[in-house]
Amino acid sequence: MRILQNYRKFSTKTLDGWAKSVQKSGKNVFVKIDKGRAGEPIQLVANKEIGQEIRVGSAIRATGSLEHSRGAQQEMEFVAEQLKVVGNDENPRYDDLSPDNLRKKTHLRARNSKFAALLRARSAIFRETHEFFMSRDFIHIDTPKLTRNDCEGGGEVFDVVTTTSTEAGDGGLKEEPMFLSVSSQLHLEAMVSRLQRVYILGPSFRAERQQSHAHLSEFHMLEAEVAFVETIDEMCTLVESYIQHMISYLNSSKLEPETAIIGSKIPISNIKFPRIRYDEAVHLLALKGSKVTAKSGFSKKNELDLVKLHDDHPIFVTHYPVGQKPFYMARDGQLTLSFDLLVPGIGELAGGSLREQSAEELQRRGCGIDWYLEMRRRGQPPTGGFGIGFERMLQYLLGVQNIKDTVAFPRWHRHCQC
Amino acid sequence: MRILQNYRKFSTKTLDGWAKSVQKSGKNVFVKIDKGRAGEPIQLVANKEIGQEIRVGSAIRATGSLEHSRGAQQEMEFVAEQLKVVGNDENPRYDDLSPDNLRKKTHLRARNSKFAALLRARSAIFRETHEFFMSRDFIHIDTPKLTRNDCEGGGEVFDVVTTTSTEAGDGGLKEEPMFLSVSSQLHLEAMVSRLQRVYILGPSFRAERQQSHAHLSEFHMLEAEVAFVETIDEMCTLVESYIQHMISYLNSSKLEPETAIIGSKIPISNIKFPRIRYDEAVHLLALKGSKVTAKSGFSKKNELDLVKLHDDHPIFVTHYPVGQKPFYMARDGQLTLSFDLLVPGIGELAGGSLREQSAEELQRRGCGIDWYLEMRRRGQPPTGGFGIGFERMLQYLLGVQNIKDTVAFPRWHRHCQC
Repeated sequence: MRILQNYRKFSTKTLDGWAKSVQKSGKNVFVKIDKGRAGEPIQLVANKEIGQEIRVGSAIRATGSLEHSRGAQQEMEFVAEQLKVVGNDENPRYDDLSPDNLRKKTHLRARNSKFAALLRARSAIFRETHEFFMSRDFIHIDTPKLTRNDCEGGGEVFDVVTTTSTEAGDGGLKEEPMFLSVSSQLHLEAMVSRLQRVYILGPSFRAERQQSHAHLSEFHMLEAEVAFVETIDEMCTLVESYIQHMISYLNSSKLEPETAIIGSKIPISNIKFPRIRYDEAVHLLALKGSKVTAKSGFSKKNELDLVKLHDDHPIFVTHYPVGQKPFYMARDGQLTLSFDLLVPGIGELAGGSLREQSAEELQRRGCGIDWYLEMRRRGQPPTGGFGIGFERMLQYLLGVQNIKDTVAFPRWHRHCQC
Repeated sequence: MRILQNYRKFSTKTLDGWAKSVQKSGKNVFVKIDKGRAGEPIQLVANKEIGQEIRVGSAIRATGSLEHSRGAQQEMEFVAEQLKVVGNDENPRYDDLSPDNLRKKTHLRARNSKFAALLRARSAIFRETHEFFMSRDFIHIDTPKLTRNDCEGGGEVFDVVTTTSTEAGDGGLKEEPMFLSVSSQLHLEAMVSRLQRVYILGPSFRAERQQSHAHLSEFHMLEAEVAFVETIDEMCTLVESYIQHMISYLNSSKLEPETAIIGSKIPISNIKFPRIRYDEAVHLLALKGSKVTAKSGFSKKNELDLVKLHDDHPIFVTHYPVGQKPFYMARDGQLTLSFDLLVPGIGELAGGSLREQSAEELQRRGCGIDWYLEMRRRGQPPTGGFGIGFERMLQYLLGVQNIKDTVAFPRWHRHCQC
């Protein structure tokens, strides 16, 4: 330990980070320090006496001062007065920190600069999403993940069992079956009748076996519900203004350091999303030779083709046939008052609808969720809402090919490592 | 429908809400409209011709203008030009919307003014929490809820089963057991080694049978992890500054409308939280006749007594004996480098520690989580972190007696309604 010189006392700083490269030259050691923040690594200079223990991968805490660099490679460098190696890496060559290998070793993934930038961008987009909705008078509701109501009726759910309840000695009482929520919609609908505008950004679960670049079994859904909504257009406008807001946010300079490291291709701002009806969309696809019908619904290829037919910009498709959509959607004859937002590279990003307001009609369609029906009979106004897959949105906004690269610890069919 | 008069055209407004009371007088109907927002209901005036359908509980959409009231009870009133009843309540007497009954009918709970205020306050505190951490360079990490690692080792976990995987025809392959995360700590520790400061506010699950005013089986944890932390005091200071920030926020006028409706007793700002060691705490309790020892640990009564002994303000207790704390905490001989924050009315609100840095030492203590051990060998600096039960914090900050009244859809042992 060296005593700090007086003239430097007031500019003494602490530098915490990890050695990315170590070079010895003359009496000095030059270390590139990765702070895990945006921007280039910082060059640290220490004399050999205090810097000899540093290896690539070491975690370092240094005190010293930031000074103009004598070298040509960087403007500033950190001249260390004191230096401690506070963490060692037993495998400092970092050969196994390639992006491919890190996909299997998610516990080390933040150590990859690109992935660290992705996580910072995700966190910033998370914050901006809350700001968007909160500043528009939306109330955030923590909806439950343990539930007994399957909103989508798909059946691909994770069942939840209490270990203690299956053991003997519990008086023979068994918990009724519970599972993990696939959507927060029904619960948001319950809260909107007084709070007027509610939303959540939280985990959802689907036990899908499908393995693709667009599926996770644990993912995050942004869901919102609004009271006194009368037209699909009002909901499309809300979804569009949110997505446009996020595109503008990314095109501002705020996330520039992160998107540069990620190499993102960010969508262009302020290109209005067209709105077409399902039957028009079928017609357009038929002209291109597709055999899609009201019954078959769109394949992912159909969705991407529709986007391509619109200059590769996002489009809304509205008024899907009743056979393709869940029981809770309001209807106009054989069409639902619904919409999907299709985006380049991904296909369906958002889906929403007006909600069926009549309890009798919901019962006729087979809905047996008593509390959901009761809400309708207790002064529920017309409402509408939507859901957006947060990871898919990150794929679209940041140009990430594989959905598993948008979240710290991805879960998919038979994959729950770490 | 009446045609709007020209001179009013530019001040035409829409009013959406629910009728709380309806009174007819002369040619007019006077309706108190609950908008589900902070503040008093608004008085709506309509002539009988357009207002005759309104009953208590009706959802109403009106257009008209806000004008100075002729009555003495309110300054402004909404004079309706057009009016639609857009939702009917089949039980408009509202006898069954008492707070007690609503605890069982959580799907109608937002219709209670006090609970609606609570949900607005919760949402605002949620937002302010993210602002606190984000503005201090913390990165929000969505840690997984599906996991195979039990951080706390308590065994009171919810097991998760894939319905499809237990069915025949799945090639005989069974998923390895998964369960719902009781804590995000281990995953945050993995991310902090590069990102330096990470946190999450998200759901956690404990399959506890305990039924009390302070337990939920699905609750929300605020957890943070910081790299290059060397002392417990640094962590206590972070926790204290967060809690003090939230107390100041509540004492500012921002949430005044909500806390007035809730009837909150908000803690006093800027009273420093004392920090005492576990052995001092035991000594203090012994002087009061308690038989607490290092082995027995504190009961909730002990915790509340310690708070009372400090003028009923929050206190930190540090350096708990190793027998009382989990394997991952750093140690100083037979003491852990840990702390709990105890608060009035609740007892333990936050818990944290420095983390054991040595993989060998963790293995010696029985830790068999390979990826957790590997992190330690790959340049992990000293880290520290803490967890705060978000619902317990809401109880403390807003003076809510029962934890089930702090969240929209509470879950507890054998209770998963709606």
